[in-house]
Amino acid sequence: MPDDKPKTNITNIAPGKILIKGYDVAELMGRKSFAEVTYLILKGELPSEAEAQMMDAILVSSIDHGISPPSSLATRTVVSGGNPLNAAVAAGILTIGESHGGAIEQCARLLQEWAKKPGDINSIARDLLKDIAIKNIRMPGFGHRYHKIDPRTVRLFQMADELKFSGRHQLLARAIESEFKSSSKELPINVDGAIAAVISDMGFDWRLGKGFFIISRVVGLVAQAHEERIREKPMRRLGLTDYDYDGPPPRKL
Amino acid sequence: MPDDKPKTNITNIAPGKILIKGYDVAELMGRKSFAEVTYLILKGELPSEAEAQMMDAILVSSIDHGISPPSSLATRTVVSGGNPLNAAVAAGILTIGESHGGAIEQCARLLQEWAKKPGDINSIARDLLKDIAIKNIRMPGFGHRYHKIDPRTVRLFQMADELKFSGRHQLLARAIESEFKSSSKELPINVDGAIAAVISDMGFDWRLGKGFFIISRVVGLVAQAHEERIREKPMRRLGLTDYDYDGPPPRKL
Amino acid sequence: MPDDKPKTNITNIAPGKILIKGYDVAELMGRKSFAEVTYLILKGELPSEAEAQMMDAILVSSIDHGISPPSSLATRTVVSGGNPLNAAVAAGILTIGESHGGAIEQCARLLQEWAKKPGDINSIARDLLKDIAIKNIRMPGFGHRYHKIDPRTVRLFQMADELKFSGRHQLLARAIESEFKSSSKELPINVDGAIAAVISDMGFDWRLGKGFFIISRVVGLVAQAHEERIREKPMRRLGLTDYDYDGPPPRKL
Amino acid sequence: MPDDKPKTNITNIAPGKILIKGYDVAELMGRKSFAEVTYLILKGELPSEAEAQMMDAILVSSIDHGISPPSSLATRTVVSGGNPLNAAVAAGILTIGESHGGAIEQCARLLQEWAKKPGDINSIARDLLKDIAIKNIRMPGFGHRYHKIDPRTVRLFQMADELKFSGRHQLLARAIESEFKSSSKELPINVDGAIAAVISDMGFDWRLGKGFFIISRVVGLVAQAHEERIREKPMRRLGLTDYDYDGPPPRKL
Repeated sequence: MPDDKPKTNITNIAPGKILIKGYDVAELMGRKSFAEVTYLILKGELPSEAEAQMMDAILVSSIDHGISPPSSLATRTVVSGGNPLNAAVAAGILTIGESHGGAIEQCARLLQEWAKKPGDINSIARDLLKDIAIKNIRMPGFGHRYHKIDPRTVRLFQMADELKFSGRHQLLARAIESEFKSSSKELPINVDGAIAAVISDMGFDWRLGKGFFIISRVVGLVAQAHEERIREKPMRRLGLTDYDYDGPPPRKL
Repeated sequence: MPDDKPKTNITNIAPGKILIKGYDVAELMGRKSFAEVTYLILKGELPSEAEAQMMDAILVSSIDHGISPPSSLATRTVVSGGNPLNAAVAAGILTIGESHGGAIEQCARLLQEWAKKPGDINSIARDLLKDIAIKNIRMPGFGHRYHKIDPRTVRLFQMADELKFSGRHQLLARAIESEFKSSSKELPINVDGAIAAVISDMGFDWRLGKGFFIISRVVGLVAQAHEERIREKPMRRLGLTDYDYDGPPPRKL
Repeated sequence: MPDDKPKTNITNIAPGKILIKGYDVAELMGRKSFAEVTYLILKGELPSEAEAQMMDAILVSSIDHGISPPSSLATRTVVSGGNPLNAAVAAGILTIGESHGGAIEQCARLLQEWAKKPGDINSIARDLLKDIAIKNIRMPGFGHRYHKIDPRTVRLFQMADELKFSGRHQLLARAIESEFKSSSKELPINVDGAIAAVISDMGFDWRLGKGFFIISRVVGLVAQAHEERIREKPMRRLGLTDYDYDGPPPRKL
Repeated sequence: MPDDKPKTNITNIAPGKILIKGYDVAELMGRKSFAEVTYLILKGELPSEAEAQMMDAILVSSIDHGISPPSSLATRTVVSGGNPLNAAVAAGILTIGESHGGAIEQCARLLQEWAKKPGDINSIARDLLKDIAIKNIRMPGFGHRYHKIDPRTVRLFQMADELKFSGRHQLLARAIESEFKSSSKELPINVDGAIAAVISDMGFDWRLGKGFFIISRVVGLVAQAHEERIREKPMRRLGLTDYDYDGPPPRKL
């Protein structure tokens, strides 16, 4: 059954040898950062210096959002039922769907479809918005859910400007934002939209969009699961969104 | 119901503000790497330079191991059934149990219990081995499953030596290895054992052991899921361990 | 926040009292079968005698399909990694997607949309097939994947005939099958299509389609997980579709 | 690799043929209930009439417990994030651990270990309680969490008495309850303990204990997921345990 034999271009294993996209993992260790090797494995090539910095910033941006998001709640609920860490983290990841993290994927898809069209980026932004209005689709990645101005978005674009790392997808995203502003709609790019624009400029397939959020947030979920285990009783009444923070006070780097 | 009000020391959220262990996430972005912020969120403080380098190396070490491990197989199976990326990655994480990644946790627990005892590290190693022999427990984190000499272990300890980053847990692990050698047992420290020793020297709770493996491997699972989606037909016969690698040829950094 | 207060019409709980759709669970126990109460909880009312028999037959039909389906493979893989029963069953359920069990849902959706149109059922069948051909959609629930003639389909429709339990959705499904036959396409109704037709005649929302498969198959997954645990070694090479059956020989009721 | 070839005694598949423990599935359909075939697949043989009735009652007993248990909360959270039914149900099942449903397994294990000892059942009960007191273990399956008198327990034992279906495991469970009462501890058998006793008398392996709970509760989880999807907005604030029931009023069979 030759067609059943799977093919992979990710990792090649032999006794004493693990090659990730052709690079020996032992050589990558200590020479390339976790974010760089994450870029490598998802993209096929190592990032430039600017891409590596943007990659680190993206992965830091979504690392945790406290105990109230669905992902934290599901993770803590599974710990509370008396289950191992991996089951808890898996449940948290299961929540990351169309309405929770999914905007990265949908926004990246639209940006990638439209940014490749020829012509003036402002006209393209207008055409895109007209097109989705006809289809009765809301523009994903724009508008605030909780943070009126999302500090992560501001920082991502500030870094992109400083690093001169900005391509047609970021331009399109900013043109869409201007378009909203000029029609008096308060729909700024949010963190999902900013990530979508940056990973699109890096050349990532939009279908990996949710992947960036998962890779980042899984760290927070491990922390949430561990805290639930060591600080709370099993089967407590979960889900009250009101909580006390008793960690370190605000501090500077 | 005051006792139902959960407490958290991880992240504090207010409109326009996300503080991770007290640090503004927007300030962390671009200034601290993903591995450093991962360390921060799991440990409470930012790592030293040597700790940061070891952290990156640990997270790179387990990032992927090809299509044959249980985690890849489960992830690909869920994609093959026609499901979204997050469900596929969740299934992969569900496989990470006592027999798959679990040795990090169990080895770290033993190293942490015994390394704090006073006295000569070689005597402690002998006592530990006697104790688990009585309890009929195999020493977790030692012995090779697939790689006779695991290149990741070699590299981790080489880095620890170069960075002069080595504490009592690494000493104990190496003393155990010597002990096995002197009784003619071929049970070298494997990658799980090496990670267990290093994270113990960093001061991490052994119950986070599986967490390091999850955080690292989730990247590989995103890559495996994406490849299954874009290269394979739904509902193919999965699980043949024989496969062709058709990615980049071996190359140097 | 009054709109945050959830509403439910499923189960009402008070100390000493559990009311399922208004019925005391202690009264249901011993008086109504598991399949009848399953019908009640998903539909809101207890089934008629014929509906109860069809319900039992549907739930029996999909209870297990051996070790080779994706759901069994994922379940066994999670056990093999050293994880508890619930994590293993959860992974199996994660595989049940668009390509594995999903045809029930999609077929039921089409049957429910088209069966309510007025007019001759054969014309409706032709119009439906024309419509999906234009949209380039394959008719879900028709055609054999493994069983050329699926014994479960034959039995379900035989029971429906005997019990005189057959409504417009079954008629439409059979009309579609005739339509295929008359255009020389070998696309018989398969077990997914048969279940879709019967649950549609019972008045179930098509969005519950996958639910019937999940409820049924979870039994097989518990059996598969248990067998993997008690008969196999951890971390064996999973996924070979070739296997030996060593259970009871063929026997009659 | 002969030892890699898996063996199974559950289901044998050939084109046009599905044999469950040797019985043709098409023959089981319409002749045996879902609960009977569930018994068959987990036990290897079809149940007696009394066993079938107890099996149905057990599976009905745990079918749902409203929106507040961890399993419902996790399921609804995954729907709320914008995910398919199977992912939601999987997350619910992930919560079913040592502290949520796990008492069935642990209680059955103790009953099975001790009931096989020779001698007077009351002495055995006393010895068991002394033994676990020394090990500092709480007797699983006894004591109420929410229902002071659990109507499901009462009904299960009432049925067992009526059907004259009661073996040494039920006797032991009742002897333990008496023992608690005579030392003035209010620790009645709860529904987990009752199920543990009955499935032990049926001869089920205690390691299947959680399986009964999973098979039963998955029905409620499908209902909870479906209700969340059709009645609630995505990403609502989940987890408030206060809710309104707006389903059918109390009614009689």
